[in-house]
Amino acid sequence: MGIMRIGRLELRVMELDKAIDYYTNILGLELVGQSRGKAYLKAWDEYDHHSIILTESDSAGMASFGFKVESNEELALFEQKVEQFGLTTKRISTGTRLAEGQAITFELPTGQHCELYHDIEQPGTKVGLLNPAPWPDHLRGIAPHRLDHIAITGEDVNNATRFFVDVLGFGQSEKIVVGENGEMEVASFLFARHGGKPHDIAFVKGPNNMFHHAGFYVESWENVLRSADIVTKNNVPTVLTPQRHGITRGLTTYFYDPSGNCNEAFASGYITYPDFPTITWTEENAATAIFYHGREVSDAFNNAAT
Amino acid sequence: MGIMRIGRLELRVMELDKAIDYYTNILGLELVGQSRGKAYLKAWDEYDHHSIILTESDSAGMASFGFKVESNEELALFEQKVEQFGLTTKRISTGTRLAEGQAITFELPTGQHCELYHDIEQPGTKVGLLNPAPWPDHLRGIAPHRLDHIAITGEDVNNATRFFVDVLGFGQSEKIVVGENGEMEVASFLFARHGGKPHDIAFVKGPNNMFHHAGFYVESWENVLRSADIVTKNNVPTVLTPQRHGITRGLTTYFYDPSGNCNEAFASGYITYPDFPTITWTEENAATAIFYHGREVSDAFNNAAT
Amino acid sequence: MGIMRIGRLELRVMELDKAIDYYTNILGLELVGQSRGKAYLKAWDEYDHHSIILTESDSAGMASFGFKVESNEELALFEQKVEQFGLTTKRISTGTRLAEGQAITFELPTGQHCELYHDIEQPGTKVGLLNPAPWPDHLRGIAPHRLDHIAITGEDVNNATRFFVDVLGFGQSEKIVVGENGEMEVASFLFARHGGKPHDIAFVKGPNNMFHHAGFYVESWENVLRSADIVTKNNVPTVLTPQRHGITRGLTTYFYDPSGNCNEAFASGYITYPDFPTITWTEENAATAIFYHGREVSDAFNNAAT
Amino acid sequence: MGIMRIGRLELRVMELDKAIDYYTNILGLELVGQSRGKAYLKAWDEYDHHSIILTESDSAGMASFGFKVESNEELALFEQKVEQFGLTTKRISTGTRLAEGQAITFELPTGQHCELYHDIEQPGTKVGLLNPAPWPDHLRGIAPHRLDHIAITGEDVNNATRFFVDVLGFGQSEKIVVGENGEMEVASFLFARHGGKPHDIAFVKGPNNMFHHAGFYVESWENVLRSADIVTKNNVPTVLTPQRHGITRGLTTYFYDPSGNCNEAFASGYITYPDFPTITWTEENAATAIFYHGREVSDAFNNAAT
Repeated sequence: MGIMRIGRLELRVMELDKAIDYYTNILGLELVGQSRGKAYLKAWDEYDHHSIILTESDSAGMASFGFKVESNEELALFEQKVEQFGLTTKRISTGTRLAEGQAITFELPTGQHCELYHDIEQPGTKVGLLNPAPWPDHLRGIAPHRLDHIAITGEDVNNATRFFVDVLGFGQSEKIVVGENGEMEVASFLFARHGGKPHDIAFVKGPNNMFHHAGFYVESWENVLRSADIVTKNNVPTVLTPQRHGITRGLTTYFYDPSGNCNEAFASGYITYPDFPTITWTEENAATAIFYHGREVSDAFNNAAT
Repeated sequence: MGIMRIGRLELRVMELDKAIDYYTNILGLELVGQSRGKAYLKAWDEYDHHSIILTESDSAGMASFGFKVESNEELALFEQKVEQFGLTTKRISTGTRLAEGQAITFELPTGQHCELYHDIEQPGTKVGLLNPAPWPDHLRGIAPHRLDHIAITGEDVNNATRFFVDVLGFGQSEKIVVGENGEMEVASFLFARHGGKPHDIAFVKGPNNMFHHAGFYVESWENVLRSADIVTKNNVPTVLTPQRHGITRGLTTYFYDPSGNCNEAFASGYITYPDFPTITWTEENAATAIFYHGREVSDAFNNAAT
Repeated sequence: MGIMRIGRLELRVMELDKAIDYYTNILGLELVGQSRGKAYLKAWDEYDHHSIILTESDSAGMASFGFKVESNEELALFEQKVEQFGLTTKRISTGTRLAEGQAITFELPTGQHCELYHDIEQPGTKVGLLNPAPWPDHLRGIAPHRLDHIAITGEDVNNATRFFVDVLGFGQSEKIVVGENGEMEVASFLFARHGGKPHDIAFVKGPNNMFHHAGFYVESWENVLRSADIVTKNNVPTVLTPQRHGITRGLTTYFYDPSGNCNEAFASGYITYPDFPTITWTEENAATAIFYHGREVSDAFNNAAT
Repeated sequence: MGIMRIGRLELRVMELDKAIDYYTNILGLELVGQSRGKAYLKAWDEYDHHSIILTESDSAGMASFGFKVESNEELALFEQKVEQFGLTTKRISTGTRLAEGQAITFELPTGQHCELYHDIEQPGTKVGLLNPAPWPDHLRGIAPHRLDHIAITGEDVNNATRFFVDVLGFGQSEKIVVGENGEMEVASFLFARHGGKPHDIAFVKGPNNMFHHAGFYVESWENVLRSADIVTKNNVPTVLTPQRHGITRGLTTYFYDPSGNCNEAFASGYITYPDFPTITWTEENAATAIFYHGREVSDAFNNAAT
């Protein structure tokens, strides 16, 4: 039945130990394994083995990201469809990553490495499956529920949308358009057909093959406040103080990891369904679309891509 | 791709005018039409024409409820599968209800009237599709975002689960079990494969063909408080004061409509995916499963079914 | 300028170690000292050395409570006024309690031991006085800001009110009255002239010389939820699940310490001034006055006094 | 026993009708009277007749502000003390303003017109004094509880602090200092001895006789969000999006009235007492002191004074 969700994100970080310290103690993920220069982490409310991989590098940015699909049959089907669209796919073999089976990988029209996979160990969450508490003890830092979405940049947003809708079966929740007939998309928000999130991935017009931010889900506006407090308490640089997005109605604050990758604590937002129409924002409302309260997009946010 | 969501609920009410007053001014839905002794209403964040139908009757309870499916091809497919399970289906003709096309109807193994439909007008929401505000002006009362789920009772919960999982393709997020091997379900929480909600429908062991409550989604714990304030300010009888559910982790308060049908203002709860395992609550934790803080289930809640 | 606030509360507990474990790890106070069978604790946002004293005993209840006054001159003045009212005062000598100077003690008309004091060491809070963070790291449990108020019982509430207003200079924010002319108070809410709290002490009609509960201030309704979650996660018995008070508009949840003393996590409520009139609740609204949502007072709450 | 609170603020506005529309429909105060080119308004949770006076003028800014004292005896006492400090006082006669008695007026060392008064009619609040609901129906816009504080600018902040502490009996909750020994205050936060607020008035170094902003109290961080939403929904210009103050720990968003006077929706913050020490922020932490999350002070905020 298709793609379920954004399942993992591999980020390039410049000092692995410092990055692990930030991602465990400040962002508050759990370190679940380390192997061959990579650290594997998960958020407390995720069942799969990991959702974040940190890989040491000499520059920040995204190494790859992957969507989890419902079955290996689906995986083979998507492999065909992606090839038919004209992209070259490769199989990644079992064991290339901790706790994962085979995956397919390909380069998006916008240059980033995208993967699809089904097999990943599912050790579950700390609250367990039997009479679980609503949240585990001993959380640290921001402690989001899950990796929620990513935003990446590319030159041709319309084409990226087309690929995600036609080939991967995503829905488009919202778009920002410019131009005479409003045909050119400068931002596109796309959701997998499960999970009901307003976006699993967003494309923003910009240079190809860049990463803009990783959004982590927190429970409420009160937790966005708490996230921003923790960011300042730990001298983490802020990209954007708490605010509402026009797009998704989400509640948000942005900040940088030690390598300069942009992270978001994201809460709220509506639920999506396949039969929901796409919301359109026009050029003159683009800033309100992005930041509803400030109605302007700061240089820090515009330049956050790595 | 299957069933999308619980789309509408038809409730029997004893004095239609009084019911309309409650559902518009206190619960805060919008009255979108009236026809042949029925009132059609919707929540502000719903795109479809209506989600609640009130029908005048001499007793409270549920007349029927319906799931919206992705297409009329799906509708025909489900018709077959339901028949194959051994239930008799009938077609309801276009125009039987305001703004709706054909639907199929059948009696659940637990006796309630269930419908499936695809065609319904989609006039959209008050904030519109072009540069929308996050919420509309002039909301009244509790003003939930949507009809979120219903709970109904039945003698054989295991069989109801089987029907929903095998025939309608639902996932089971949680269950309460009793008996020597924990095989008998006394409550079952089932979600459609879209939308990511922890439940679209719940079955609770009890008499067949009864309705327990309709859950309406509000944004946050702060809105649960506001809902409970509004309930008291309007002398609406309370079933349960604000609390957390163990099951779904949802935040909740319950109250009665003027006919005695139980309504819930429900917030929060986790997101579901097809690959998530079912959470199990054991008999001795059943009360905590239902009401996490109070750890007991009141007579009012136990006797709320109509 | 008079009495500042309820400054400390000495509770009788039956197993000191168990009580310390609860008050530090679940309620989340800081243990600041132990001496002669007593444990001294403070909330994180209090400047004074301690606000809670636990004293081992063979029964639960309140040993005494004390108000802090602005100066030792004030202390001497109140000593006179209390004597003039007809109560016998005694001086407690410096060093009787850790970090405290002289205090005066007397028996209230309702039998409880009340103290007044000025001298107490003021080590300050963990966030310090220089460029402080909004909250300290490493909080545990509920972690309230402060001891907020106490409620005690007595046979003659009108007389208790008279003593607090005429002798101690308190204001009366609210009262519940019964009887033909509404002259008999069955509950009275009294605030010191500083701090603007809706109550520092409440009297509820009941047996003399009993303690009903200690209210600890938490920041918000979200923290009341978190408090109730922590209570259940730790199998602490609940007295009352989250709710709003009609009186004070406060947001609340109640639970028991291991000895059976009732504790409250209390948030919100209005600000008081000397020129504010007293709010009156009538007998038929007494339950709504106490618990605004449930509109009934449970046996657990009625019988919580120790 | 001294000064109770900031009781009223008279603002100069350029188009009275437009200002009334904003202050009633967007900020959400109640218009309680109009007389001689002035509009009188109050917040829903205030007992006194009015707290805001709008007076038509050809420029924005503050005409005057006033503190309410406990009695007319106190008023006479303060009159003497202010004169002894070297300032000239005048009596304003009864009836000069709607619903007010005599007041005294004088020019602060920083140039603004400050008044003290006791007599003002006290019609009370819409929820009344008998079995009141926690909030009234039919609120519009932001609907704050009360005028909470004002901030004004002046060249000599140390001297302003001295006047408020020594003559008016205020406490100083916090200060920002600069210079070799940290002796020069560039901001000072002062609270009246009742009410327990972190500030009734703040002084910020800047030109004499300017007004910076009026802070209105809203209930919670969720209401700060709602305030910022309402500001954008109504195209009101924003000064600062939601954030925490380091000073007071308050939660805040700022925006302009139609004449350019700066308004704040302010929530939370700690409680103050006379025995609390003053918190000090050093020059290099001044931006964090003001805006804890952003750690920088925008030009819009710096230039908001009228």
